[in-house]
Formats: sequence, C-alpha cells, structure tokens
Amino acid sequence: MYTLLAKDTSTRARAGILQTRKGLIETPIFMPVGTQASVKALSPNELVDLGASIILGNTYHLHLRPGEALIKELGGLHQFMNWNHSILTDSGGFQVFSLARLRKIREEGVHFQNHLDGSPTFISPEISMQIQRDLGSDIVMAFDECPPYPCSYEAMSISLERTLRWAKRCRYWWQSQEAELMQEKMPLVFGILQGGSHDDLRKYAAETLVDMNFDGYAVGGVSVGEPEAEMMQAIDASIPHLPENKPRYAMGLGTPPQMIEMVARGIDMFDCVLPTRLARNGTAFTAKGTMNLKNAPYARDTSPIEEECTCPACLHFTRAYLRHLIKAEEILGLRLISIHNLHFYLHLMRRTRQSIMDGTFTQFRHDFVSQYVNWNVS
Amino acid sequence: MYTLLAKDTSTRARAGILQTRKGLIETPIFMPVGTQASVKALSPNELVDLGASIILGNTYHLHLRPGEALIKELGGLHQFMNWNHSILTDSGGFQVFSLARLRKIREEGVHFQNHLDGSPTFISPEISMQIQRDLGSDIVMAFDECPPYPCSYEAMSISLERTLRWAKRCRYWWQSQEAELMQEKMPLVFGILQGGSHDDLRKYAAETLVDMNFDGYAVGGVSVGEPEAEMMQAIDASIPHLPENKPRYAMGLGTPPQMIEMVARGIDMFDCVLPTRLARNGTAFTAKGTMNLKNAPYARDTSPIEEECTCPACLHFTRAYLRHLIKAEEILGLRLISIHNLHFYLHLMRRTRQSIMDGTFTQFRHDFVSQYVNWNVS
Repeated sequence: MYTLLAKDTSTRARAGILQTRKGLIETPIFMPVGTQASVKALSPNELVDLGASIILGNTYHLHLRPGEALIKELGGLHQFMNWNHSILTDSGGFQVFSLARLRKIREEGVHFQNHLDGSPTFISPEISMQIQRDLGSDIVMAFDECPPYPCSYEAMSISLERTLRWAKRCRYWWQSQEAELMQEKMPLVFGILQGGSHDDLRKYAAETLVDMNFDGYAVGGVSVGEPEAEMMQAIDASIPHLPENKPRYAMGLGTPPQMIEMVARGIDMFDCVLPTRLARNGTAFTAKGTMNLKNAPYARDTSPIEEECTCPACLHFTRAYLRHLIKAEEILGLRLISIHNLHFYLHLMRRTRQSIMDGTFTQFRHDFVSQYVNWNVS
Repeated sequence: MYTLLAKDTSTRARAGILQTRKGLIETPIFMPVGTQASVKALSPNELVDLGASIILGNTYHLHLRPGEALIKELGGLHQFMNWNHSILTDSGGFQVFSLARLRKIREEGVHFQNHLDGSPTFISPEISMQIQRDLGSDIVMAFDECPPYPCSYEAMSISLERTLRWAKRCRYWWQSQEAELMQEKMPLVFGILQGGSHDDLRKYAAETLVDMNFDGYAVGGVSVGEPEAEMMQAIDASIPHLPENKPRYAMGLGTPPQMIEMVARGIDMFDCVLPTRLARNGTAFTAKGTMNLKNAPYARDTSPIEEECTCPACLHFTRAYLRHLIKAEEILGLRLISIHNLHFYLHLMRRTRQSIMDGTFTQFRHDFVSQYVNWNVS
C-alpha cells in the first residue's frame, strides 16, 4: 500500500507512493480539507486542475448533515460530491472535542450535544467506523480522544489508554467486516497516536498501535495550542517507533515551513484548513510569507500574487483587482485566493518530494525556510 | 451599430445585431450584472463559457469603490476585471435614488450621502459621463432621475423634464469629447425614458430623446414596485415612438416570462440581478418556474436541476448535493446555482432569438409562458 521510493541522507525525509483503492498518491502530500463534502469555494474540477489527488471529509460534520445514511443511499461521498479520487475521512474525534457541547466521555464512547442544533448525539469507535464505511472513505481514521493543551501527565496517560482501547475496537470492527466486504474494497485504516508532549507516552502509543498493525499512523494532538517546539518534539518522539513501510500523517497542520520541518522529521501526509480559511480573509501564501491583500499598497499593484506562480488566479488577475474584490466582499475574491493558496500548498509538497527524489532536500529546506518570513498560526 | 435581422409578423418581437467597439451582440440579449466589477460568484471565463457577450458595470458602486481614477489608471474596467467583451455601465441614477441617503436633487445634479460611509457625494450628468468614460464603458447610459412608485402626474412631469434636460447635457458632454476621442473609440450612448405609468409622458420622453439622436433607448422606471400590467403598459407606451434602427433596453428586468413578454413588445436588451440573487438563496430557474432547492423533497433527489440542461451544474451535480451545499452554507452551492440560473437566462434569450429568426416566436412564447408557473418578483 505504501512504497518507499527515496530517503534523504541527512534527515528522516522520504518520498513514496501510497496506494488506495481509488488510486496512487505521491507522498509527501497535502490534502485539501472538504469538511462538509466541499473544499470551501472550489469545485471538484478546479481541485483536479490543481493536481489534488486526495481530499478530506469530516465524519462529525457529515454525520450531522446530511447524514451518512443519505450519502450511502446516493452512492457514497465520492459520487455525492462528484470527486473521483481518494478521500480520507477523519474519525470525528477531534471535532467532538473542539465543537460539541456538554461532552461526557465514557468507556463506550462520547455523549454530547452537537453544535448544529444542540441535540444529544453519541459517537463510539464502532459508530465512527460505520459512518466512515457508509461514506465510502478510502482512508479511515480510528476514533480517538483529543485532550486539550496543556494536559497533565496523569490525565494524558488515562486518556491515551482509552484512545488505545478504542483503537483496538476500531481494528476489530474492520476485521469483523472483512468477510462481508470484498478484500479489494477494504479501505486503509489508520491509527492515531496521542500522548501530548510526553515522549514516553508518544513511544508507548506508537508501539501499541504498531502492534495492532494499522495501514498507516497519524500523529494527533498536535496544533492544539502548544508551542511549535513542543509540536516538533511530539513528532520526533513518535516517528522512530513507526515502521518504515507505513505512511505517517500529521493531522491538521500547518504553516508551509512547519510542513517542511515535519517532512524532515519523517511525515508523509498533511491536511490543513489554513489555505482556504486565510483566503476568505484576504490572505495569500507566497514564498516570502503571507500577504494580506487588503493592505493599501496593493490598491494600484498590477502584479499577480506571485510573479512565477502558474495558478489560474496569478495567470489572470492582479493584486489590485483581488484587493478590490476582498474589500467589496465579492465571492470571486476569496475563490481566487483559495485557488492560489491551495496551489501553493500542493505545489510546495510536489517541490519537496522532487527535492527528496533528487537528493537536494536539505538545500531546498534551507532555501525555503530562510526565505519564508514565518508566521505564527496560534 | 444596430442591424435588424428579422421581425416577428404578429408581435413587435425582433432579432438583430448590436455592434459595440468590443464586438457583436446578438439581440434579444440578457446582460449579467457585475455591479462591483464582478458578476457575483462567477469568474470571467465561466461567463465566456456560458456564452455571455456583454455584462453590466455600475457607475455608482465603482465610483465609490475602488473609484474610476484607479480603474482608469489600471487600464479600464475590462482590463481591471479581465473581461474582454462588451461592458454596459448604468449611470448611477437608479442607485442614487435607491441606495443613497439625504438626497438633494438640484438642477445641476444630485447631492447625497453614499451608502458605504455616509460621506457627501455629488453626481451630475457630466460627472456620470466622465466616470463612465474613465471606466472605459462600451455602452454608456444617460444620467436620469428615477422617481418612486407611485408618483403623481405633476411630480412625474417635473421630474421627467429634468431628466430630459440632463439627457441633453449628457449628449452635449459626449459631443464635446469627440474631438479628443478617436471616432472608433467612442462608446455608444443610450438615453433613458422615464414617465412612469403615464402614456403621454412616455410618448413625450421617447420623442424628445429621439430628437437628441442617442445610439439606443432604455425604458427606465420599470420594476420599481408597480403591478406587472403597468410595467407592460410603460413598454407599450414607449416602443411605438422609438426608431426601428436603434436598440431598446428594459432596465433591471425581470422574470423569464416578463422578458418574453417584453421581447414581444419590441425590447432587445435586459439586465437583472434575479439569476444571481436568487441563487444565493438556493432558488433555481427552470422551464416550469422557480425551484427552491432547500425544500426537503430534494434531499434524496439524484436528478440535476433540469434534465435537459447543458450547464456545468446540471452536467455534474444532483439536486441532493446542491440542497446539502445550500443548507450547509457552502459557497460552491451558490456558485453552481448562479451558473445554472445565468445559463437559463442567457439560453432563454438565445432560444427566443432563434424563434424570431425561424418565424416561430408566437408558438415559442405561448409554450414557454404557459409552461412556466409565474412567480411574482415583488
């Protein structure tokens, strides 16, 4: 399922190919986020034109609206949204802990009031797996608990043990489906490592999940408010304990330099709402850092967002026009900046991958990170 | 500039070609509205793909933001928004009377507080012409006063006289430019008929404006709250007094059957915000009337908005998905319905034109209007 093609000699960076039942994914890869069965403001054909090979869907949101039963009845999420490439669905764990109200965590699962209408909702590991199966996900994530930051060692330890028991239930659930599902129709199932900033808990999480033989491993509980150094530490504490022949995914990250730094630490897959969320506020990503197109100096600026960029927004439109559209709250403005930003993220991973294949990753990393004026997400 | 190609034998419907300095426009034509230098939610290439040959820009809005000086400096409105076909700009008259506050109408022009920041603003016939010239408009509208509905005969008469004096000043202004502007760079300049529901005022307006020899004539002061019968009456009272060799434009209209009925009365050009405005609320136009895609029965409906429609939204997406997108407030939903609705309007005018050319307009009109469940705009 994962084929390692090249390894950097001085870092843990690697290039590979991940095969899902829908196709091949060249890693490192960035996955645009389509929370509610739509990557915000873009059409599926625009995503194809940008070279996206996999997108995210969201179990929590789609369970609430329109519901997995409806999506299954209409042929699954791919057909529903007219996206014919791979889809990864997260398990709903993160959203239960960031969006839902009046949470009660029990051994069987989580009871909560959902954020849409406040009605009582229950998600368990088995229910999350069932939802993701009904959606027709190609890469299914285990249902986990995502503790807040900061979190004491003892609380994190108790939470991690439950997450690992839940992971085992997720694995069992899929094994029980194998007779029913044809082997070629089985999605990939990824485990999620928690453990916060505690190195020994990360190691323990990795080893325990590896024993369950998942198809891939995600580092969760990162980008939850911790300093960047702790985020990198969580990756460093996890990766050495993961097998080389399985893909590794850092969930919900990050800024462009953060992604490069995580590739250097052995991560293969990323997803992040930043490209589309910042676009809606008029912020574009460039090789030199983010650019707020609302700023007055762009009012008469006839250059594109980035001179050398080949995205449709940069080929056809000026900063002056984009600024006007954002100031006038015209939808075309956030559409064009979303397209540019997603192109930037997708293309950054293509360049990163190529540098690993060429043996020039260290130079590429240095050049990119030193040119980019870092910008703190939190 | 306007070439009459075919006339219906039993109505005033006609097909023709209008030539602007940017290209040829087959009439009857629908013109999508791009108030703030963007047809809401669409990109210029999507408009080209839909077959739009001319769009509207708005003098009032563009004067306030980003300002005609900026647009002129950046090469004009076409270059600013990357639209290489014709642009008609309205004069700002209608917006001064619908959006601005604390209006003071004087012989020289209108003083008001603009709706954006309340700052004092002044537009005169000459200023409106200057703005439209700076924008680079291909079809310029005279600056008029648009009285409210209802309006007494006396008040309407006083207002109309001023509108006609203003029209003369607009015509003079352009004549004074002819030496400076090369002849081939002159835009078309249209006069606007007011006169409300008073037949003799409409006749007087038409005859007075025709004496000024405009390049085309618009019926203004329609769709301002009057019953549909009065709207049609205003057209009927105006058209017989307009020359056959000039285009006629009904401003700010209308529903699909209204447009067909107005074509039957001799109108060649339409603009209307309904296709994009209703799309943002989840309403799609169909041959059988409007369809509110938020309605529950569409939740499991895997057909497109219209089976026979060839627009990108109908080719690739189901009613069920569109309903989900609108309910979830995803931008792609209003994008796709906007595309469908504009296709519907543009294609309706193409079909109408073809029926006039084929000599089957009366049958087409009957079939379309009887099939369409009318829907009251007001």
